[in-house]
Amino acid sequence: MKVEGNTQGHSSLDVMNFLNEISSHFPSAISFASGRPAEQFLDASRWGTAMTQFASYFAERNELSLERAYKLLAQYGRTNGMINELIAEHLAIDQAMSCSDSNIVVTAGCQEAIELCVKTLCRDHDDVVLVRTPTYIGITGVCESSGIEMASFSGARAGMLDGLANAVERLERAGKTPKLLYLIPDFDNPTGDVLSARERTDILAFCAARGIVILEDNPYGMYRFEGDAVPTMFALDRHGCVIYLGTFSKTICPSLRVGFAALPTAWFGDEAQARAIRDELSQRKSFITVNTSQISQAIVGGILLQEKGSLRAMAVPALDFYRDSRNTMLQCLGEQFADWRGQVSWNIPAGGFFLSVFLPFPFGAEEAAHCAKDYGVLVMPLSFFALDRADDQHVRLAFSNVGAADIRSGIERFARFVIDRMRTTTHVNR
Amino acid sequence: MKVEGNTQGHSSLDVMNFLNEISSHFPSAISFASGRPAEQFLDASRWGTAMTQFASYFAERNELSLERAYKLLAQYGRTNGMINELIAEHLAIDQAMSCSDSNIVVTAGCQEAIELCVKTLCRDHDDVVLVRTPTYIGITGVCESSGIEMASFSGARAGMLDGLANAVERLERAGKTPKLLYLIPDFDNPTGDVLSARERTDILAFCAARGIVILEDNPYGMYRFEGDAVPTMFALDRHGCVIYLGTFSKTICPSLRVGFAALPTAWFGDEAQARAIRDELSQRKSFITVNTSQISQAIVGGILLQEKGSLRAMAVPALDFYRDSRNTMLQCLGEQFADWRGQVSWNIPAGGFFLSVFLPFPFGAEEAAHCAKDYGVLVMPLSFFALDRADDQHVRLAFSNVGAADIRSGIERFARFVIDRMRTTTHVNR
Repeated sequence: MKVEGNTQGHSSLDVMNFLNEISSHFPSAISFASGRPAEQFLDASRWGTAMTQFASYFAERNELSLERAYKLLAQYGRTNGMINELIAEHLAIDQAMSCSDSNIVVTAGCQEAIELCVKTLCRDHDDVVLVRTPTYIGITGVCESSGIEMASFSGARAGMLDGLANAVERLERAGKTPKLLYLIPDFDNPTGDVLSARERTDILAFCAARGIVILEDNPYGMYRFEGDAVPTMFALDRHGCVIYLGTFSKTICPSLRVGFAALPTAWFGDEAQARAIRDELSQRKSFITVNTSQISQAIVGGILLQEKGSLRAMAVPALDFYRDSRNTMLQCLGEQFADWRGQVSWNIPAGGFFLSVFLPFPFGAEEAAHCAKDYGVLVMPLSFFALDRADDQHVRLAFSNVGAADIRSGIERFARFVIDRMRTTTHVNR
Repeated sequence: MKVEGNTQGHSSLDVMNFLNEISSHFPSAISFASGRPAEQFLDASRWGTAMTQFASYFAERNELSLERAYKLLAQYGRTNGMINELIAEHLAIDQAMSCSDSNIVVTAGCQEAIELCVKTLCRDHDDVVLVRTPTYIGITGVCESSGIEMASFSGARAGMLDGLANAVERLERAGKTPKLLYLIPDFDNPTGDVLSARERTDILAFCAARGIVILEDNPYGMYRFEGDAVPTMFALDRHGCVIYLGTFSKTICPSLRVGFAALPTAWFGDEAQARAIRDELSQRKSFITVNTSQISQAIVGGILLQEKGSLRAMAVPALDFYRDSRNTMLQCLGEQFADWRGQVSWNIPAGGFFLSVFLPFPFGAEEAAHCAKDYGVLVMPLSFFALDRADDQHVRLAFSNVGAADIRSGIERFARFVIDRMRTTTHVNR
């Protein structure tokens, strides 16, 4: 179970380096590698008006002159943030989540929230972070850089609870403490998977009974293409065991670097404990970033005010674009691999930024480099995100920041690589 | 030498809590407690034009349309930052420092730079961070929250090098590795002290010979009231052993949260090693804040462009205000304690935000609370920043964000407390 880097030797840093290097070496390649939001929907022209609107609100709310409000906006601020009420309102409207503003810690991007939670909650040498494999590189990076042990279980949804239960049992037998479970229940990175309401409540009950805290990371939740939304685990939680991690990087823009952690009112039933954990997160934050840029917070706050708390209407154009992009990619995959459907397959994510393709041969760093160099397309081996070998034949394709024409060319290029490889591999028979 | 919290039981978190609590309990008290920059010089009206100016520069420099430049400003960005060249130019002009832009890592405030450097460089269990005592709470907080041992030596300038040498020798005898020396050579927080050029070169030679890295933190360097500037230790360094930590919190505004670490070109003579350390800082940062808010960076970049790289002219009104504030405070101290000059004394800092007062009785949390509650003035016991008991009778007074009238009333109140205490303390004879 113990993970050093991971069993395949891809540490999170190796992956970052690989991605940076390959992108800089082949700048003209079409990239399905990174899950950035589509640039056309990032609207810098709103920053000024948003800030003005927030400053007026802040002045009124605190009975200050506008001038004084701007001075306070420019000054050091509260470690936990200044837009907590607006975030609580947004969560209530857009995610049907009931969360007190005093239980929100605003962070310098969601990654800081992950860092704060993991480091604050995993203090003992025996504390272990549970993750699905494959998983998001941001959690792996935090654990690796601070020497916190990770234990993984299969991300395949059939039998996921069994996988989790087995992992926990093995850890407990080894004298370890399974402390945190990190999950992206909606449109998982890298798999695109969604957990059903039943899976969520089962996992909640299991974790609550064992004192395991769930870190629910939800960067893609606003981007559901079809079907009914499933309540967040935070909303379903009756035990006080879920910390919800949010971000405005995918709805407003990444360069703000504004995210947050929302804590339950009663930590496993204990309100004083919830406050104590919040204060520990906040104190830890005060020695990392002091407070989150109030200029960025004012922009987020202003947009939340302009949109009356809901980012859904504003997200529609991007949502439509992501849906179209997924559809284009699925269509191209269908066309390109029409004659290879027995060998090549892929999932159909109901939202988010990613899908994954299964190939009849292992696809690792070497294949990714070959793809980039000789076929002009960047893709990510799923094994880069994995803690076991189960995903060696999978590839992650991000469709979030690529136009339709590039999706068509890129999938054609990728398919050419895959088919060339299949044709030259003796054990593959068409 | 080993420090847990510190020998007086004031952990950095205790201090933060105390400050927050006392400020919120006595909001109408005059505060000399926190070293915030004066609000009247924080100019939010420049943010918009600065951003516009930077966007144009960024577009031109990278041969992009202005629209495309804004999209990139809104997107995820380079972990190491996007205004590195402008910072390098600013350091060359304002601090006579020669630093390659590629050796700069832009951070979410200087505190993140401290965190990154300490955690990246102190990896082994035996690595120890050296500090003067008293010292800045931000370094203590990082070490405490990550279990990194600190060793202190007397901050009194006479014999400082001896104190450092003794501390290093004791550590080495105990099988420990003195890895980092944290210093604020210009207008130290909390003491207001400045190290002479001779002291700087002596410390540099000592550290270079022993492979000790110097973290030179310089938040107050732009605010010298009189006398000639002393070159930064980075500028004096011929060994490649100084990392310079900078911030725009005191020159532009704190709410930006933009700071940086500037590394030497050759790390103890080794260029490849310097690049490797920079990459490690950057990779560590990618798992904490991903990249620094590009909106904040654009504001800093735009102001640096508007000011042609030098922040000195822009800093003049604040500098004049801080000098006046120090003078007012010194004058009030002189007047209030005119009859007590044998018992009460203070230093005359040549710049920065702080001075410290020596009292004929111990001044700790209880006295500070008494001062706040019954005399309406907030001050910080110097012992809060100390790692030994040598400063128990000192008080830190911040004069940076208080108007002249409040300085007069505040010092009068503080003097009333001190004199009342001296009069009721039997062993003090007038």
